[in-house]
Amino acid sequence: MAPSAVPQQQDVDLTAAAVQRKEAQSHATNGTTPQELDASRLTYTLTSKPRPVPDEAVANAGDETVATDHMVTAVWRAASGWAAPELKPYGPLSLMPTASCLHYATECFEGLKVFRGHDGRLRVFRPDRNAARMRMSAGRISLPLFEPAELEKLMVALLTVDGPRWLPKERPGNFLYLRPTLIGTQSQLGVQAPKEAMLYIIVTFMPRMDSPPGGMRLHTSPEDMVRAWVGGFGYAKVGANYGPSLMATQDARRRGFHQILWLYGEQGECTEAGASNFFVVWRRKGDGKRELITAPLDDKLILDGVTRRSCIDVARERLAGEVEVTERKYTIAELVEADAEGRILEAFAAGTAYFICPVSQIHHRGQDINIPMGPEGKAGEVTSKIKGVVGDIMYGREQHPWGVVIPEKE
Amino acid sequence: MAPSAVPQQQDVDLTAAAVQRKEAQSHATNGTTPQELDASRLTYTLTSKPRPVPDEAVANAGDETVATDHMVTAVWRAASGWAAPELKPYGPLSLMPTASCLHYATECFEGLKVFRGHDGRLRVFRPDRNAARMRMSAGRISLPLFEPAELEKLMVALLTVDGPRWLPKERPGNFLYLRPTLIGTQSQLGVQAPKEAMLYIIVTFMPRMDSPPGGMRLHTSPEDMVRAWVGGFGYAKVGANYGPSLMATQDARRRGFHQILWLYGEQGECTEAGASNFFVVWRRKGDGKRELITAPLDDKLILDGVTRRSCIDVARERLAGEVEVTERKYTIAELVEADAEGRILEAFAAGTAYFICPVSQIHHRGQDINIPMGPEGKAGEVTSKIKGVVGDIMYGREQHPWGVVIPEKE
Repeated sequence: MAPSAVPQQQDVDLTAAAVQRKEAQSHATNGTTPQELDASRLTYTLTSKPRPVPDEAVANAGDETVATDHMVTAVWRAASGWAAPELKPYGPLSLMPTASCLHYATECFEGLKVFRGHDGRLRVFRPDRNAARMRMSAGRISLPLFEPAELEKLMVALLTVDGPRWLPKERPGNFLYLRPTLIGTQSQLGVQAPKEAMLYIIVTFMPRMDSPPGGMRLHTSPEDMVRAWVGGFGYAKVGANYGPSLMATQDARRRGFHQILWLYGEQGECTEAGASNFFVVWRRKGDGKRELITAPLDDKLILDGVTRRSCIDVARERLAGEVEVTERKYTIAELVEADAEGRILEAFAAGTAYFICPVSQIHHRGQDINIPMGPEGKAGEVTSKIKGVVGDIMYGREQHPWGVVIPEKE
Repeated sequence: MAPSAVPQQQDVDLTAAAVQRKEAQSHATNGTTPQELDASRLTYTLTSKPRPVPDEAVANAGDETVATDHMVTAVWRAASGWAAPELKPYGPLSLMPTASCLHYATECFEGLKVFRGHDGRLRVFRPDRNAARMRMSAGRISLPLFEPAELEKLMVALLTVDGPRWLPKERPGNFLYLRPTLIGTQSQLGVQAPKEAMLYIIVTFMPRMDSPPGGMRLHTSPEDMVRAWVGGFGYAKVGANYGPSLMATQDARRRGFHQILWLYGEQGECTEAGASNFFVVWRRKGDGKRELITAPLDDKLILDGVTRRSCIDVARERLAGEVEVTERKYTIAELVEADAEGRILEAFAAGTAYFICPVSQIHHRGQDINIPMGPEGKAGEVTSKIKGVVGDIMYGREQHPWGVVIPEKE
């Protein structure tokens, strides 16, 4: 098609939003109608060799992530759409050395925990949000789209099979980790959107990381390293946000810190803590009011975290008289000033992996901001209250629509 | 290690350069000395089923990249270092679903062409530069380092085996494509530098892309999309630079353009054309002198392309009286102005895949910049001269140190 054949008014429309709309259309109309992702077509091939279920401590001690007996996979091809998903024994994937995801980071994922409740039931937390976000991430990284509800059903199907044995009723308060992943698999080195992809879902062990002794210690990002930028993809859960951050994180760890506090721009806006969202509780400058502050979503620098959003909702609904919630840009200089004035009360990282993890220190350009912790080295008051509510929903102490019960055979 | 145990003066040193030095040290000292990558330990397992060598047109017609009979792999583990590299039959890789590269884009690669010369000899072009860049990219994405010369030897070893049959002497002027790749393979979902990795080298067909009919047509990047940013990793050949760019590229292609001209910053600096470097030949404003201009490397936004560097060197050494070479930031507004004043003479994209490819049009915010081509729709004068010299070195019409001859058995 010659450029002259293109309506000129489309030009102003070459924005991420417009492009994503077109992606959706192109995936949907393709000569014959390609198959949608359809959980009702799931086939089951159960393992003949179920592995022994390890103790949580043992499972998390090694260098390899331990997965459960089964996984779900679904193959997509541009011409035919989504093939029937398969539930089958967990095992290696076979990829050609030319596979798109190995070269061009055509990959995105999600992370959710599955909880064995104190009431004996199995729950996932707000899986609709993860499924919707995964669809968004897929579009951003030029991978195929799907109906989020179908992904949710596939996650539930896998948990129905592996949940009862791998997260048994005798282990209330335990959790496993669910990792839906979508990778570009076309064996093609041309730099282009892959015409083949594979969705897979696995369930694994993951260590508890929400209570490091002494609290989480953050090191601000190096002056010459930026995690995400306006016009980039910091808001999408794509592999490309993670690998490039490892260098700074590894160095911070070698020096005794847990994570990087990623700053952005000349003013040093606080964005994310490692791969988690970041919150500060302080006495607001001026009126001295207690405020819970976190970075906003509007410039698309940070992930729209499910835990982040839940913290905000809980604080607004249940701590209305105690703390005001503000989503706005705030800088490391504001934290330094608040620290000097003794106004910082608490801070925490929020995400699926770290859950709600109190932060005790931020090291910035040779200086420490020391942040109070609660009694017995636990989280402070506001952090603890939010964590308590969210945790109660996760583990079924409170019945709530966010805690979605997984059906199990008796 | 408590933060208090860390010398404070190190703080100012948490920059990319400092971190990379430390990465290098940490990979080098590890209790017992881990093995270095050592091409002299290469083992050979030749295929018992050599495939028929397809015609170039046939090989490039399909949706899958066709590779030669063999590949080289080398496995790295943090504790033991590099295992002996293996030359073995080309085939699928087996990766656990938890492999680092499938989630966190812990991957980098290189691209080189191997040429069957008109003198009958097999050559690669400046492989030392690709090998050195791959080591740099590996460090940036927290993958293991290696001596670049060893990677070069492994490439040569593979070509010595597959070159004679897959790029036969009866096909002078043909080329194949060499793709060294390094991926993080540790089966571990924790967001951390992988403790296991695999280097592999494959040789494939690739279509000729240096002479699209009518020249290459570029569309400037959407206002809300940025390829790379200061403090990012645009200078490294890591997967994370590619996947996120596909959305804009795909949309531009649907509208009849070949690639995106990636602009940066509020002024709209011209950076890269697709995944290639970008050059303009114009009459300089003011003195009217003929100038070859391209973006600079110093802010680390763009790839330090081997073809880019070769073009610059050739223009400086061989076209000294005819054109002045300038590496500086220049904006799309300068191009629009030069176009209005009739000062744009030529433009081209330069990279391994597209070689030196004349650009005939830049579409920006609803307006076209039309760029002259040479006679018969070929490249213009300066572009053609540079392309001629570099091509002559690649195909052995000129004996030059940049053209490294691959030894072949008679």
